[in-house]
Amino acid sequence: MILDKVNTPDDLKVLSIPEMETLADEMREIIIKKVNKTGGHFGPNLGIVEATIALHYVFNSPVDKIIYDVSHQCYPHKILTGRKEGFLYPEKYLKYTGYTAPEECEHDFFKVGHTSTSVSLATGVAKARDLKDEKGNVIALIGDGSLSGGEALEGLDNAAVLGSNFIVVVNDNDQSIAENHGGLYDNLKLLRETDGKAQCNFFKSLGFDYVLVKEGNNIEKLIEAFKSVKDSTHPVVVHICTQKGKGCKAAEENREGFHWILPGALDNNQSCGMEESYTSITREYILNKAKQDKTVIAVNAGTPGVFGFDKEFRAQMGKQYLDVGIAEEHAVACASGLATNGAKPIFAVMSSFVQRTYDQMSQDLCLNNSPITMLVYWGGISGADATHLCTFDIPLISNIPNMVYLAPTNKEEYLKMLDWSVEQTEHPVAIRVPMCGLNSTGLEDTTDYSILNKFKVISKGEKVAILGLGNFFGLAKEVEEALDFNATLINPLFMTGLDIELLEELKKDHSLVITLEDGELDGGFGEKIARFYGNSDMKVLNYGAKKEFTDRAPLDELYQRYHLTKEQIVDEIRACIS
Amino acid sequence: MILDKVNTPDDLKVLSIPEMETLADEMREIIIKKVNKTGGHFGPNLGIVEATIALHYVFNSPVDKIIYDVSHQCYPHKILTGRKEGFLYPEKYLKYTGYTAPEECEHDFFKVGHTSTSVSLATGVAKARDLKDEKGNVIALIGDGSLSGGEALEGLDNAAVLGSNFIVVVNDNDQSIAENHGGLYDNLKLLRETDGKAQCNFFKSLGFDYVLVKEGNNIEKLIEAFKSVKDSTHPVVVHICTQKGKGCKAAEENREGFHWILPGALDNNQSCGMEESYTSITREYILNKAKQDKTVIAVNAGTPGVFGFDKEFRAQMGKQYLDVGIAEEHAVACASGLATNGAKPIFAVMSSFVQRTYDQMSQDLCLNNSPITMLVYWGGISGADATHLCTFDIPLISNIPNMVYLAPTNKEEYLKMLDWSVEQTEHPVAIRVPMCGLNSTGLEDTTDYSILNKFKVISKGEKVAILGLGNFFGLAKEVEEALDFNATLINPLFMTGLDIELLEELKKDHSLVITLEDGELDGGFGEKIARFYGNSDMKVLNYGAKKEFTDRAPLDELYQRYHLTKEQIVDEIRACIS
Repeated sequence: MILDKVNTPDDLKVLSIPEMETLADEMREIIIKKVNKTGGHFGPNLGIVEATIALHYVFNSPVDKIIYDVSHQCYPHKILTGRKEGFLYPEKYLKYTGYTAPEECEHDFFKVGHTSTSVSLATGVAKARDLKDEKGNVIALIGDGSLSGGEALEGLDNAAVLGSNFIVVVNDNDQSIAENHGGLYDNLKLLRETDGKAQCNFFKSLGFDYVLVKEGNNIEKLIEAFKSVKDSTHPVVVHICTQKGKGCKAAEENREGFHWILPGALDNNQSCGMEESYTSITREYILNKAKQDKTVIAVNAGTPGVFGFDKEFRAQMGKQYLDVGIAEEHAVACASGLATNGAKPIFAVMSSFVQRTYDQMSQDLCLNNSPITMLVYWGGISGADATHLCTFDIPLISNIPNMVYLAPTNKEEYLKMLDWSVEQTEHPVAIRVPMCGLNSTGLEDTTDYSILNKFKVISKGEKVAILGLGNFFGLAKEVEEALDFNATLINPLFMTGLDIELLEELKKDHSLVITLEDGELDGGFGEKIARFYGNSDMKVLNYGAKKEFTDRAPLDELYQRYHLTKEQIVDEIRACIS
Repeated sequence: MILDKVNTPDDLKVLSIPEMETLADEMREIIIKKVNKTGGHFGPNLGIVEATIALHYVFNSPVDKIIYDVSHQCYPHKILTGRKEGFLYPEKYLKYTGYTAPEECEHDFFKVGHTSTSVSLATGVAKARDLKDEKGNVIALIGDGSLSGGEALEGLDNAAVLGSNFIVVVNDNDQSIAENHGGLYDNLKLLRETDGKAQCNFFKSLGFDYVLVKEGNNIEKLIEAFKSVKDSTHPVVVHICTQKGKGCKAAEENREGFHWILPGALDNNQSCGMEESYTSITREYILNKAKQDKTVIAVNAGTPGVFGFDKEFRAQMGKQYLDVGIAEEHAVACASGLATNGAKPIFAVMSSFVQRTYDQMSQDLCLNNSPITMLVYWGGISGADATHLCTFDIPLISNIPNMVYLAPTNKEEYLKMLDWSVEQTEHPVAIRVPMCGLNSTGLEDTTDYSILNKFKVISKGEKVAILGLGNFFGLAKEVEEALDFNATLINPLFMTGLDIELLEELKKDHSLVITLEDGELDGGFGEKIARFYGNSDMKVLNYGAKKEFTDRAPLDELYQRYHLTKEQIVDEIRACIS
């Protein structure tokens, strides 16, 4: 194998073009095998193999600095920068993260997993180079899908006037995670179709020099282009057209489905049955609602698959479906506009990405009290990569005035909240879609959610009251059942306000309140309870996650660390009331 | 006066062009007089008078909907939509807010004061119109300065593919608050200089039709252009070139200084002495530091005046000064890039606008532990307009892992923290620049801030410990002095972590801890103290702001409402320990 001889980027520099082509095949083979085993980003990595080889052939990393966007496409880079064992040997498959990680390697500069950041980060790197009067190329790699994000666009506008060496490689595989959306993509298409010669050129309009590599999987042409811009003294865009999923038929044909795959996707051809889940019932609810009410509209920002907004869903929804592309800020503001003008937007977003929209939630949405429904998916403590933690949405969202943030604990509550939210016209409402398996009571929820901040008492006991929020209601119930007396079990439902009356009432015959939340404790729900009881004899114990970035930590380990096992909690309750 | 006859936009429609020109003069006159009396946005409003008349002449508001960006330019609109009394009569000068406000008038659609939102909001309004099969024009007005913001760029990309009527009026006065920064502005210049005929056109590259009105203060030409796009069936940009500050010589000549003015600016020609203040000592510190260390760089996002980064400062800093324009997300990511490559960025930002950067602070900055210094200005409870509240930065920033957020209480602490932060290489550091007058102890601060979360005991007493955070340390001291026993007075210094040892120690001879913070209580500092003591006999009282959007509420009233007067606090302490 050629790959045997390649341990650092320097080892590439002695290879011939045919050898590099063979190397590309070898790399592709191990990526396919490894990712089909472990799961991970698939299509983007297969598309960028040749470009990665060409970049490391032409440039001199790490003196020249290649800065990855979102790093959905960093596996070939990892292979070429000393980490090939993580792709060759099954026992090493989990050694490296799925994203760039400076702690792994001197060729990685940032820990990155959110989109649209590379250009901004790289302008800083380049500007520091200039302040220090140093040399070297700074290269920002960014996919076409990521280009539509505000941070990337702000970055491009600024990078264009840097006045020194700066190379943006636009990896255009004509696809975001799903299809692209936005006027920008018509321009990329025009540029592809005119061999880059169209007068109206988005990048040139910002002031970049511009080079097109139409055959973005042709190593020779890529090398030629990269050589032509190396040591450029001004900002330049190299627009390369690559094939997403290249070399794997299934991925070439189903570019959305194979953007990211679960383990074994190639074996079972990615056929996933639609078992009933919070995702499936949401999908069904929206489809039905939209049929009855033409003002209902499902909005998302470039990740429809996460929400089950598949091709069939999109087709059925027609103009009642809006994917704004990677543009979360726009999604929130646009939803506020929709609601203000009488439509009923349902914006689905992952907890980790809702972080991009704080100011839009505050100013465009909550200050204007626009009645939108925001569905926050995946919120909770998890074993995710540090770049995709979903632990922070409760502090982020629940401290914004006017917002109503709801924590359902079962199917019936969830659907009732969802329908209430869609139909009401008073509040911006966010619902934290449960992370646990679908839990059905079989009993209709008759709660009137327009009465805000009314907690639900599930069973009335004494001495100890347990508030189990959202995902952690089940844990709360287990704890209650494990105690040798009747504690009070409460389902708070609301994360944005306190049930003062109930909390006062508890003072009569309770001496301890415990709160359980599936997220960061700092700034979260439990602390509000602690504040409420601060000036009373009531003791309060708050359970949740520590303020920290965890990185692929096993969930069991995290629960232990955070004292979130039933046994730990029961012991601590006993110690507290004894 | 023509203005006497104009009470609604309909009254414009019978006027001749010369009458409208006279009306423009009359409007300008009352704007100048009023704003010079009350303070407010000056230059942008003077520049947009004719365009506002022409918009309301051609379009049929509120069926046609004009949506303002940042609303620094909404005074002429207010005058023409039934609110002229607020500009004519001194006793009514404060009746209306300085921003668009739906509660005031059916011609206002959003409460807006942050930049770059109009296009996104308007796309939602337009999409709702389409879902309802309604007619009518949707017009997003946006200034050239606001165009560089990520939300605006995301919005433009999406608006371009709306597929129905959508009109973006780009109000190009060739100036942001200060000068513009970014490649986009070279394109606007090119378009102005080529009568809009340049092939490379930013807006066309996104898919918009495009019309230039070079004489953007010529009512007749504006009317002609607006008529030409009225009822357009696809998205179109009308690029109008207006003169910022038109009609007021001082404002025409000093476009930055007269963007927003204090009362009486025209009388004293805006001469403000540079008294020593936190702003002036920061400016001086940065200038000195930058001279000694070429890697020090001052960064801001389009509001240099707020930080005293005036023309002289910029000239002295040279390439060690970076204004990224309205692009806060980029500013944070770029600063992270700077730090990663060995520079020492100092990013100055207002509390209200740091809200735009949560994800960048979390992902680009804190996850990467990049050692930047972020100076957060104006943080605290204030009588500001609802759009410019600075009450939320403690919950926003302090719950992000790895961040160190500091609360200095005097000049010496502040300068010591600042220099420590700039020189250290371990942490992302934010400092909340004190809002109160400069307070100097005259004693050098010898604290080692690398020992994180070490609170400072100012005086050791018993029974009650008072934690006075940042701006509210003075109030804490007053409370301590008003008590008839020796309480313990503590200056926490750190907002991002607790001094566990000290807090434990207090349990020995204290029964009450009170916290005072100049910001929202929910998610803030005090709640962390309440959580810490939840499982102990220590009582805790947290003082700070309620979770709410206040709107030009007098500060005294807010302090009363939040129980933040010395008398209220002393009474409550007495009640609690009696």
